[in-house]
Amino acid sequence: MRLSKYFLPTLKENPGEAQVISHRLMLRAGMIRQSSAGIYSWLPLGLRVLKKIEAIVREEQNSMGNQEILMPTIQPADIWRKSGRYDDYGPEMLRIIDRHERDMLYGPTNEELVTEIFANSIRSYKDLPQLLYHIQWKFRDEIRPRFGVMRGREFLMKDAYSFDINSEEARCSYNKYFIAYLKTYASLGLKAIPMTADTGPIGGNMSHEFLIIADTGESEIACHRQYLEMDLSCQDIDYNQDLQPVIHRYTEKYAATDDKRDPAIEKALGDDVRTARGIEVGHIFYFGTKYSEKLGAKVSGPKGEEIAVEMGSYGIGVSRLVGAIIEASHDDKGIIWPKAVAPFKVGLINLNISDRDCTVACEKAYNDLDCAGIEVIYDDREARPGAKFADMDLIGLPWQLIVGPRGIKTGSVELKNRISGEREEISMESALTRLLD
Amino acid sequence: MRLSKYFLPTLKENPGEAQVISHRLMLRAGMIRQSSAGIYSWLPLGLRVLKKIEAIVREEQNSMGNQEILMPTIQPADIWRKSGRYDDYGPEMLRIIDRHERDMLYGPTNEELVTEIFANSIRSYKDLPQLLYHIQWKFRDEIRPRFGVMRGREFLMKDAYSFDINSEEARCSYNKYFIAYLKTYASLGLKAIPMTADTGPIGGNMSHEFLIIADTGESEIACHRQYLEMDLSCQDIDYNQDLQPVIHRYTEKYAATDDKRDPAIEKALGDDVRTARGIEVGHIFYFGTKYSEKLGAKVSGPKGEEIAVEMGSYGIGVSRLVGAIIEASHDDKGIIWPKAVAPFKVGLINLNISDRDCTVACEKAYNDLDCAGIEVIYDDREARPGAKFADMDLIGLPWQLIVGPRGIKTGSVELKNRISGEREEISMESALTRLLD
Repeated sequence: MRLSKYFLPTLKENPGEAQVISHRLMLRAGMIRQSSAGIYSWLPLGLRVLKKIEAIVREEQNSMGNQEILMPTIQPADIWRKSGRYDDYGPEMLRIIDRHERDMLYGPTNEELVTEIFANSIRSYKDLPQLLYHIQWKFRDEIRPRFGVMRGREFLMKDAYSFDINSEEARCSYNKYFIAYLKTYASLGLKAIPMTADTGPIGGNMSHEFLIIADTGESEIACHRQYLEMDLSCQDIDYNQDLQPVIHRYTEKYAATDDKRDPAIEKALGDDVRTARGIEVGHIFYFGTKYSEKLGAKVSGPKGEEIAVEMGSYGIGVSRLVGAIIEASHDDKGIIWPKAVAPFKVGLINLNISDRDCTVACEKAYNDLDCAGIEVIYDDREARPGAKFADMDLIGLPWQLIVGPRGIKTGSVELKNRISGEREEISMESALTRLLD
Repeated sequence: MRLSKYFLPTLKENPGEAQVISHRLMLRAGMIRQSSAGIYSWLPLGLRVLKKIEAIVREEQNSMGNQEILMPTIQPADIWRKSGRYDDYGPEMLRIIDRHERDMLYGPTNEELVTEIFANSIRSYKDLPQLLYHIQWKFRDEIRPRFGVMRGREFLMKDAYSFDINSEEARCSYNKYFIAYLKTYASLGLKAIPMTADTGPIGGNMSHEFLIIADTGESEIACHRQYLEMDLSCQDIDYNQDLQPVIHRYTEKYAATDDKRDPAIEKALGDDVRTARGIEVGHIFYFGTKYSEKLGAKVSGPKGEEIAVEMGSYGIGVSRLVGAIIEASHDDKGIIWPKAVAPFKVGLINLNISDRDCTVACEKAYNDLDCAGIEVIYDDREARPGAKFADMDLIGLPWQLIVGPRGIKTGSVELKNRISGEREEISMESALTRLLD
């Protein structure tokens, strides 16, 4: 991609409306634009990151044996009346009346709708378990939307649902999601700690939140110091093995969100307890038959008896993760993308587009990288070097390949690693070899 | 994918609510489920097709040099008041009041919002042209939603927008989209004829609709018989060449939608005119400065003067295409997917899962195909052969590989081509070679 043709409206000034660093950086880097309070348009650079995160989330859901569906954004109020949540949900639910005066709503989550789909399709215990997920836009009419895409009103969520014949099986499904989430965060380049959590308006018996540590996190968490050093990536864990001992290992020590903290435990732990700021990046629930009873999601059991299925639900905020990753990975110059979600791998900077040798070298490097399938953005704009450096640091690609008229006379370029900050003067050939790796 | 574990709730009976064949077949094939009038959930099989179509549409938009963004579904009423369309749009627009009593709406299209994004980002004629598109859910509160996903209320659309400095440049952008659309339909395995069309509520000076011919089409079109034989695929056309002569070739003869038909022309054409039923699968508009003037999308020209940009908009109904393709390609047994959008390439049928040899052969074939990256669904259910044949014909995959206990004794299987209907008794080895091709 040539920057001269790319729709990347970066801002020099810090936008006044943004309180947190990820929001400021996303606006400045031309990733998003606000259209109303808590509602954003994703511009090309932001959308690339959003799609990479979505793809990583999807891949692990598929790997665990989950099936993708897509439910609509607009739901009928009826099913929410059946579950009893139409009144419970309060003003956060965006209520809509259609032209025929029917009560509708913009889905804030999908327990009711997916339960109805299940109820209309599955009849026998032999067809269980069923694991279904979708990645769809949701709406929650937050009273005070803030922190950019981290607490917006319209947001992209991966929400998944499990249907099992009994509570033991349901626990197995819950455990699969638990492990899938840890694998997903590791693939994103994040470390998220599982913590016992409140079930809130979803309801139910068991729940965990996954939190990443960031100085600018929204809430204060406390956990045993072992979690900070523990490898939570689950690389070697197979979904078919008994997952309970693994889950036990990751949950036996103390780890609590804001509203679940226990001063007595923390006092007893003494030096072993750590407090930190955390950002929620996932939440899983087991809630038994709460929805299946009310919405008639019953199957016939081995003896022909009717059994209400045991359910759980499992959410990852896909758009929220874009902000959360920036909160966890930035410096005073801009964003520092983990490799897996970087919008491009390489930023190629031409320091002087009027210099023939410099431009010939850049064009060749650009073509070589592009043809090899390396995602590269080429700053071929007519602009001062300072402005180019600033924009490239701001958008935070893993590598910068800097080509100037002086260096190129001896065939040398500068290769900068945005993550480590390391800079090297090397030959163009060596630089390309490194980047093509 | 093993059918025994796949969420594919096929129906034996024709659902009463479905009037058209594509709607009936999509419900029966377990592709979609209705959640409210004109609003559908996409089940795994349907979602696979939707995503394939989306990917083909996206690929051609990218090839033509269009940049992908993603605008939200919920828009503020303000910008629609500025353009004058808030009142014009009538009850088809889903109007929403948020918790702070602000007027919002579920976007039926995005001219206003994209114009605002452009206006806030682009300042100079040097940064033109700009071509932006997004693929996002829209809502139109149809008074009588019908024909399943072909005229639903919540639907997925690719809408694109062009911004140019003058009308000649705008015409070049319009021509690029015109060609991109023809290439897209060809990639989907469809032939769509461009026809002069009304501009409707979008407004403007020039417009074309693209229609596919299907006996069950929603409207009657008329065109010169040459269009029915002409190759419209545009395979060899480069976006950088002068496209005007190409467009001329595809539009010089008579072709008109329902409301644009001209009895005088048709009489003059005599035997050369053909009438047929058609389904709209795309609509493009050039409307000059209608929105840029009202929403302040102005750039500074070469002499520093302020110029309102010339705009066009370009839509393809992605979810509608799923239904349209079925209308154009089915028989009395079910869907016949064109290869490019088929949810799977091969349906492997095990006629008797209790037969050891038969099952060993199927498992091996399934693994061979799957490992080679061939999309295969394996009917390993405990069910009668008749039910398996019926379901496989219904879901319409290009190839059926049928393995039975008798044939497998001599190593022979049946390979059925769903499109031609041809069946061959051949060795498993030859069948796999053919499918791996």
